[in-house]
Amino acid sequence: MIQVSEALTIVAENSSKMPTQKIPVNKALGYVLAKTVHAPIAMPPFRQSAMDGYAFTHSRRHQYDVVGISQAGDHSNTKLEFNEAVRIFTGAFVPDDADTVVMQEHVMANEQSILITNMPEQFANVRGKGEQIQKGDVVFEANTLITPAAVGFLACLGITAITVYKKPKVAFLVTGNELVESGKKLPKGKIFESNSIMLQAALQTIGIKKTKVYTVKDKLKATKKALKEILPQYDIVLISGGISVGDYDFVKEALLANEVVELFYKINQKPGKPMFFGKRKETLVFALPGNPASSLTNFYVYVYPAIRNKMGFSEIHLPKLIRKLNADIPNTTGKTLFLKALYDETHVEVLGGQSSAMLNSFAIANSLLIVPNDAEMLKKEELVTLLPIG
Amino acid sequence: MIQVSEALTIVAENSSKMPTQKIPVNKALGYVLAKTVHAPIAMPPFRQSAMDGYAFTHSRRHQYDVVGISQAGDHSNTKLEFNEAVRIFTGAFVPDDADTVVMQEHVMANEQSILITNMPEQFANVRGKGEQIQKGDVVFEANTLITPAAVGFLACLGITAITVYKKPKVAFLVTGNELVESGKKLPKGKIFESNSIMLQAALQTIGIKKTKVYTVKDKLKATKKALKEILPQYDIVLISGGISVGDYDFVKEALLANEVVELFYKINQKPGKPMFFGKRKETLVFALPGNPASSLTNFYVYVYPAIRNKMGFSEIHLPKLIRKLNADIPNTTGKTLFLKALYDETHVEVLGGQSSAMLNSFAIANSLLIVPNDAEMLKKEELVTLLPIG
Repeated sequence: MIQVSEALTIVAENSSKMPTQKIPVNKALGYVLAKTVHAPIAMPPFRQSAMDGYAFTHSRRHQYDVVGISQAGDHSNTKLEFNEAVRIFTGAFVPDDADTVVMQEHVMANEQSILITNMPEQFANVRGKGEQIQKGDVVFEANTLITPAAVGFLACLGITAITVYKKPKVAFLVTGNELVESGKKLPKGKIFESNSIMLQAALQTIGIKKTKVYTVKDKLKATKKALKEILPQYDIVLISGGISVGDYDFVKEALLANEVVELFYKINQKPGKPMFFGKRKETLVFALPGNPASSLTNFYVYVYPAIRNKMGFSEIHLPKLIRKLNADIPNTTGKTLFLKALYDETHVEVLGGQSSAMLNSFAIANSLLIVPNDAEMLKKEELVTLLPIG
Repeated sequence: MIQVSEALTIVAENSSKMPTQKIPVNKALGYVLAKTVHAPIAMPPFRQSAMDGYAFTHSRRHQYDVVGISQAGDHSNTKLEFNEAVRIFTGAFVPDDADTVVMQEHVMANEQSILITNMPEQFANVRGKGEQIQKGDVVFEANTLITPAAVGFLACLGITAITVYKKPKVAFLVTGNELVESGKKLPKGKIFESNSIMLQAALQTIGIKKTKVYTVKDKLKATKKALKEILPQYDIVLISGGISVGDYDFVKEALLANEVVELFYKINQKPGKPMFFGKRKETLVFALPGNPASSLTNFYVYVYPAIRNKMGFSEIHLPKLIRKLNADIPNTTGKTLFLKALYDETHVEVLGGQSSAMLNSFAIANSLLIVPNDAEMLKKEELVTLLPIG
């Protein structure tokens, strides 16, 4: 049995980056750039007015004749004498003969001329060509996450496609004779299968929209056959159930028979101890605990960083937050605990109902509090570490 | 011109909740419950073993004959004498005659019998029927956000559909003679239109997947006609461009002609001052500034809470974070500033390039630092407020 830190290292070291693909910028939200992007044009592409006002050549003069107009979208490069100005609007082309824009609030105007009542400094209110970025300059380095603002910046430079790391294809294999599809009639002794629906939702929160679900009964032959079909098609295979120490657990046997190399099995933690992590070529296999809360915990702690690594993120783990504990938390287990918790700006409170089968507290938690395996007691007001979730 | 706080209040007070709808649980991630949900069954639905081991009736006795087996999914209610036990697995039905499960690591076993080497307490390792929730109890109150764990909890109770607030339908109207579709040939004086793509991405991050985009040239008649078509069909209409003080701005005129009631126009902030907010019946209209960074700022500050309010969230604004400032920030404008910033666990750094036209710094920012309009200077190491974004 290995420690959480070792398990995290093994997951990170074994999740290689996905191949790259070129995709449209308007579909690129949440992807990570695989290639550095350079600007195909300068931005702004021409000298632009930053205000509604009048463009003129700066001098000691306060009165100017208005000899033209420059609206946004125009390119009327009006010739200007030293005593002439053009009416101009925000974003519009500044004629080559002008170097300054005075905002309309700072002039008195009639149809033909203006009197500047509050003289701006030379070059005021003119955005230089390429002030934001010059043609050929780096827009974003490789490994940049595409945010809404990044989408906007790429689009304003006229870039319509970029090269990103693909998202992994994820399959979900459900095993368990005790499981019945949610909403059907529930025979005695059975429970509703909920892990596949729950983990599909968790995958959606990190941008994996479609997950194929396969179901097999707890039979070695059926499980072997399903894995043989699934493994070559997917980048990540999540398996739920059948991986605890019971006599009827044979998922591990089916995995090994399908050339999945075991990288670890069981982690010194609670909940979530009985997890298998393995690999077949570049496909990662997580056989998650069957208990819902254990399964979701291990999703956040292990599957999440593996997916982020595959997608090219430079920071793969959930960000760690530090908060003050609002009550003593003993740890007599010698295991790392992941406790469902609620944090605010300063403190964190551990929720009731921490059983590995219970989702009640998970549903209202906003974080997992980490209690290290070698900490026998976390004291009230002590600074502790948590992983924000949801 | 109103202050930011007044604008926020007006937006919150005017964004009514959406109608409700019944949707499948597996599509419910990110929705907010409109009706309290009660448990149709107890969970667990029967007494369950929490361990792989042996079920027996607790006594002083250490040796038991193994007379049966209970696997997960079985319902073999084996009759047990005081000296008998059944082999049992995690999640399996505990026979009515047993009250305790000993984990298999704490027994010595042969085919027919076990010797308990480490006696558990009475009732140990047995999950009581309804321990997690009793039939009829409240699963989630109305106004609960559906997280992955909530999806799992509903599914494990066999609940397949819930009543939620609908998501608003959002339309985006682009105006501006200066705008060219991104990636086309760029004539002199024109710029690429990027706000619609950027704000569609921003909407996606809060679960609004499809946004219809309409484009009109800067002409009053065309804009009036487009609004007449759009307003009755959508819950939120975002308009980009044409709302500054220039002579060629007529969006406001077109809005008023379409019975959109003005709730405010212009906010004492930078960037993002020239914004119109209005309402026609229950449809909200935001005419956002044309500058990309201003537009995205106002999306996060005003449109985001309006959408959350419509979707039934109890907390509608971006959560406020408090950090220490890493350098002095002067504010000579008398306006509330929203500055693109990067925060870590303790500090926040304001990024370069705060111009309202610039998206560079926005693309790498993780927050907007709020500088109050009445603060002339925020000092290094002072605690400041920020809105996390992206």
